[in-house]
Amino acid sequence: MTAQLIDGKQIAADIHDEIRADVEEMKTETGKVPGLATVLVGTRKDSQTYVKMKKRACKKAGIASFAHDLPEDIRQEELLKIVLDLNANPDVHGILVQLPLPGHIDEEEILSAVSLEKDVDGFHPINIGRLSMKRRDPLFVPCTPRGCIELLDRTGIKIEGKRAVVLGRSNIVGLPVAMLLLHRNATVTICHSRTKDLPSVVREADILVAAVGRAEMVKRDWVKPGVVVIDVGMNAVDDPSSEKGYRLTGDVAFDEVKEVASAITPVPGGVGPMTIAMLLRNTVDSAKRCL
Amino acid sequence: MTAQLIDGKQIAADIHDEIRADVEEMKTETGKVPGLATVLVGTRKDSQTYVKMKKRACKKAGIASFAHDLPEDIRQEELLKIVLDLNANPDVHGILVQLPLPGHIDEEEILSAVSLEKDVDGFHPINIGRLSMKRRDPLFVPCTPRGCIELLDRTGIKIEGKRAVVLGRSNIVGLPVAMLLLHRNATVTICHSRTKDLPSVVREADILVAAVGRAEMVKRDWVKPGVVVIDVGMNAVDDPSSEKGYRLTGDVAFDEVKEVASAITPVPGGVGPMTIAMLLRNTVDSAKRCL
Repeated sequence: MTAQLIDGKQIAADIHDEIRADVEEMKTETGKVPGLATVLVGTRKDSQTYVKMKKRACKKAGIASFAHDLPEDIRQEELLKIVLDLNANPDVHGILVQLPLPGHIDEEEILSAVSLEKDVDGFHPINIGRLSMKRRDPLFVPCTPRGCIELLDRTGIKIEGKRAVVLGRSNIVGLPVAMLLLHRNATVTICHSRTKDLPSVVREADILVAAVGRAEMVKRDWVKPGVVVIDVGMNAVDDPSSEKGYRLTGDVAFDEVKEVASAITPVPGGVGPMTIAMLLRNTVDSAKRCL
Repeated sequence: MTAQLIDGKQIAADIHDEIRADVEEMKTETGKVPGLATVLVGTRKDSQTYVKMKKRACKKAGIASFAHDLPEDIRQEELLKIVLDLNANPDVHGILVQLPLPGHIDEEEILSAVSLEKDVDGFHPINIGRLSMKRRDPLFVPCTPRGCIELLDRTGIKIEGKRAVVLGRSNIVGLPVAMLLLHRNATVTICHSRTKDLPSVVREADILVAAVGRAEMVKRDWVKPGVVVIDVGMNAVDDPSSEKGYRLTGDVAFDEVKEVASAITPVPGGVGPMTIAMLLRNTVDSAKRCL
């Protein structure tokens, strides 16, 4: 058996088209466009790349961006003031604080300062609290977890009643995706580095979300035939044959597992492109709420 | 095999002794005592009973209580003002809003108004958000879930590395207890009314927390021999042979399951007495933080 490919690149492109149409309509009807502020502290290469990709995606979608590229040694109060000013700016509908912040910054205070109505990353503790609870819908669902669910929905994969196994329990992916699957009536198991006999737990999955950050850890004999695999991993492994000297790989041994899975996301081109698509979706939803 | 009885009544009594000693010490050292405010709206019999039990327990422990027994038809703003006044009262270290509130009251607004520092029930969305996330300790852990963990700890049952199954996903028990077990490094499965083949999922448990509210639903052949059972259920079933015409029973068929489990809580006398003990513990911890 060879699995159906869950084509995140194509699905994200479809979502970008929908967003562009929404923005166009909003502009025609109100003369306004959605606005996303990016707050980047320091010069981490990966963070710079992410923010650049986000700005570029905004531009393509017709969303205004408001960039704040700030020095590594910014003081807590200065950073806080920038966030509060963005809260007050009516042209800004979403505020993205790129993580991680430098060590001297109190990250929770900054994230808590972002107005709930503009928390397009969904990391405000109140949004996480609402996400965890039944019937307390958060204003925004974190982008990568929302992207995982969207991939399942747009591939026509039913979640209700399925055994879902989430490998990894991070605040930004594992935990929220587990909560989303639970609210969609999956029976959810969360496993992690302290789980005993991990392969046998993973084998219980009808739907597996791997978000643990270990290259190709999940092997063919770890999965039940017919499993649906959402691979959030994004690991750089040495590859002298490649131009860059490395290649990107997921948490799942794709070539093996695709032979037994019923559907699987590739890495890259699976979950990755969904994160930015969901960020823009959250921003446009936020702007619509303000109309 | 006959299971070890996890004696919640005795464990709660031990905790009450510890609390009394703490209160005594605080009084001697500072001249102050911890204070708990109870806010009861309407005349629901069960809510009245719970609040009365809480007041009585405070009295026995030397904790001051501040009772607000309010009419069913109280307006949102009036109730909100009472909560804000209690937030400002330095003699009050914990505020308990007895749930459920009447239908015309916006429950989330009221619970969110309780000062984070006095949220001894742990139901403020920020406390729930912190509870769900790794390394973001909430100021207070909800009482019943905390009581479940305390029962395991004080019986010497190891949580790390175990398969824990939580039956039920309520905001007040199932979800928070699942998060607590996860943070203690159990591999956690959350199941519920939409779970397929529930018995086979429950059979995976080394530790089972039943919090689903269905009398004696978990049968002997649903559990793995040696399982540890924490039964949060509290169901009234008709019993003509009893004086009251009913008896209380848990979610687990105690008489059958105790023959295969390694340890089990009775109902009543298991989790029940722990809830109030943890409420007082949270109140005293809060008062200590204010010193």
